[in-house]
Amino acid sequence: MATLITLLTDFGAADSYAGEVKGVLLTQVHGAALVDITHEVPPGDVRAGQYVLSRVWHRFPKGSVHLAVVDPGVGTARRALAAGAAGHFFVAPDNGLLSFLPADTHFVSLPIPPGASPTFHARDVFAPAAAQLALGAALAHLGQPVTDPHRAPLPTPHHDGAALVGEVIYVDRFGTLVSNIPGPDVEPGVRLSVAGTEIGTLARTFGDVGRGQVVAFVGSGGTVEIAVRDGSAARLLGVGVGAEVRA
Amino acid sequence: MATLITLLTDFGAADSYAGEVKGVLLTQVHGAALVDITHEVPPGDVRAGQYVLSRVWHRFPKGSVHLAVVDPGVGTARRALAAGAAGHFFVAPDNGLLSFLPADTHFVSLPIPPGASPTFHARDVFAPAAAQLALGAALAHLGQPVTDPHRAPLPTPHHDGAALVGEVIYVDRFGTLVSNIPGPDVEPGVRLSVAGTEIGTLARTFGDVGRGQVVAFVGSGGTVEIAVRDGSAARLLGVGVGAEVRA
Amino acid sequence: MATLITLLTDFGAADSYAGEVKGVLLTQVHGAALVDITHEVPPGDVRAGQYVLSRVWHRFPKGSVHLAVVDPGVGTARRALAAGAAGHFFVAPDNGLLSFLPADTHFVSLPIPPGASPTFHARDVFAPAAAQLALGAALAHLGQPVTDPHRAPLPTPHHDGAALVGEVIYVDRFGTLVSNIPGPDVEPGVRLSVAGTEIGTLARTFGDVGRGQVVAFVGSGGTVEIAVRDGSAARLLGVGVGAEVRA
Repeated sequence: MATLITLLTDFGAADSYAGEVKGVLLTQVHGAALVDITHEVPPGDVRAGQYVLSRVWHRFPKGSVHLAVVDPGVGTARRALAAGAAGHFFVAPDNGLLSFLPADTHFVSLPIPPGASPTFHARDVFAPAAAQLALGAALAHLGQPVTDPHRAPLPTPHHDGAALVGEVIYVDRFGTLVSNIPGPDVEPGVRLSVAGTEIGTLARTFGDVGRGQVVAFVGSGGTVEIAVRDGSAARLLGVGVGAEVRA
Repeated sequence: MATLITLLTDFGAADSYAGEVKGVLLTQVHGAALVDITHEVPPGDVRAGQYVLSRVWHRFPKGSVHLAVVDPGVGTARRALAAGAAGHFFVAPDNGLLSFLPADTHFVSLPIPPGASPTFHARDVFAPAAAQLALGAALAHLGQPVTDPHRAPLPTPHHDGAALVGEVIYVDRFGTLVSNIPGPDVEPGVRLSVAGTEIGTLARTFGDVGRGQVVAFVGSGGTVEIAVRDGSAARLLGVGVGAEVRA
Repeated sequence: MATLITLLTDFGAADSYAGEVKGVLLTQVHGAALVDITHEVPPGDVRAGQYVLSRVWHRFPKGSVHLAVVDPGVGTARRALAAGAAGHFFVAPDNGLLSFLPADTHFVSLPIPPGASPTFHARDVFAPAAAQLALGAALAHLGQPVTDPHRAPLPTPHHDGAALVGEVIYVDRFGTLVSNIPGPDVEPGVRLSVAGTEIGTLARTFGDVGRGQVVAFVGSGGTVEIAVRDGSAARLLGVGVGAEVRA
């Protein structure tokens, strides 16, 4: 049986860190199937890591274990968490990275073994816990219950009169601006704007406009996105995470 | 049994897209073995994607399924294809990405499910089709036959008197210029040139010249390559894809 | 049974090279589990490759095969090696990449098949040898014994009076300077310096100093590291590999 363990970190692809974690996992869980979600979360960017993981985890089969480490506070008093929700398992630092999990999620606090490197809990704390979960250990077996995990959810839009006001919460490789405005919340015919620039009404996809033109559509994550066909909206509009989006 | 599914995309390594596709595949094909060929095709560069995939697919065992998505026209009227050739299976947009496949390849057109995101067919159209193929579904079962797939083959060299005139079709990480001139077509003793710069005759490998010197040889893909030992030919010669190569 | 084969190269993630190697391995070893350690060793940087591999290999279970190719001398007279140590197997060019292996390591010299591409031994020499080892072939079966492998170990610190003088041997993604000074060799209370800049005494982890401040600690590889909390020590101090570290 191949137990699935996914990895999401800000370790980058060049250093030894992801490899060391994989070695620990494969030593402890014979035949585990490891899946790299990404190791390219911008260093220390808990919010970007949270956004990516929130989009990905539920695509995997139940029983998957998700190891998520974006951990600028490694080695400090911040807790190390394991969690269970919707049949999935998670290990991550208690810094908001798992804020997307539902309210009924079970959290436990992982003990830090005395020999753990204070700067590499991914290898010495989270990977062993992920291995335990992959091997079938009960969450309650791994640590003490935690009822107050650090929650730092991504911002949500608010109303300003008739307008819905959200913001850019992620910029992808293509320079596409991903907003937090749910597609179904946008009234038909409403004209959108980003950081004061008018974009027009919602289209369906890139190809609905000419090359180099700006287009807004409901993206694959279910929220409004602003893109440039065969180009970068982030560069063309000169905006990034936090920019106001109005619909 | 581990069914092999390879992935080649221009999604980059940082965003959620490759992870979402992997989740769909692993949910639908229990125990599938996923192999990343690359997610670093330059955004929208169908030709570069075609070149990389043309070098790689036949190295995998028969029965492998190759998911290839470089898809600037996603969500438009361009068709979504599945294909079978030489015992391998492919899913890709109908934009020329599979132009390297032989003339007797079987192509079918994949239906687009109503709920598919118009900007993420990799997740909602191609991954489910790849999963079906990995589970043993017949190609004919997946869609209507296509007899006129979009073909945009890489350019081929031509003769100019005694000279063979080709071009750079790919530049790799090392700055090595990969041409489309087949090694066996180069007459012994012929002096090569790139964009007007004389290179000399074919050598065997980098180490045949001094550090920082330009060298031409028959590369691992079978065509003439121009490199700089411990350096970058692309940078030193200031040329890239499309530059003329004469032999 | 999933045989583990790890890959460490300087091929980058964009080109066909890693994919071609994976195809060869999976064609020859049905069901092999491939693990990317990294393909982002800086081009030709044997020393960086050596450092990363030296940290990672022993984290994997015994029986693993490690394919390591950073090979600026590919196709020249440099030998191609297979090696066995501590229950692990290795294939690599004979250029110092495996210098971290213990003195009692068994090395053999791999024959170069006539058809091998002179610029791609990873695919045509090392991958087939790794496949053989993964399938259980004895090392002695693969080639002639080698008793004088090229050894180019990473530098070690020396004493200068009471001071221990080492150097930066690696800079990671976070800009952290990894030195070669073993943590246990640093006397309590000793003040460290990097390239003449005073750093202070050893702390435990990033979080022990304020944001943007320099901190030294014993890193996860067991040696002294110098970092900047939420920043880059390499950038702030303007130093890199080779910079003197005094303790």
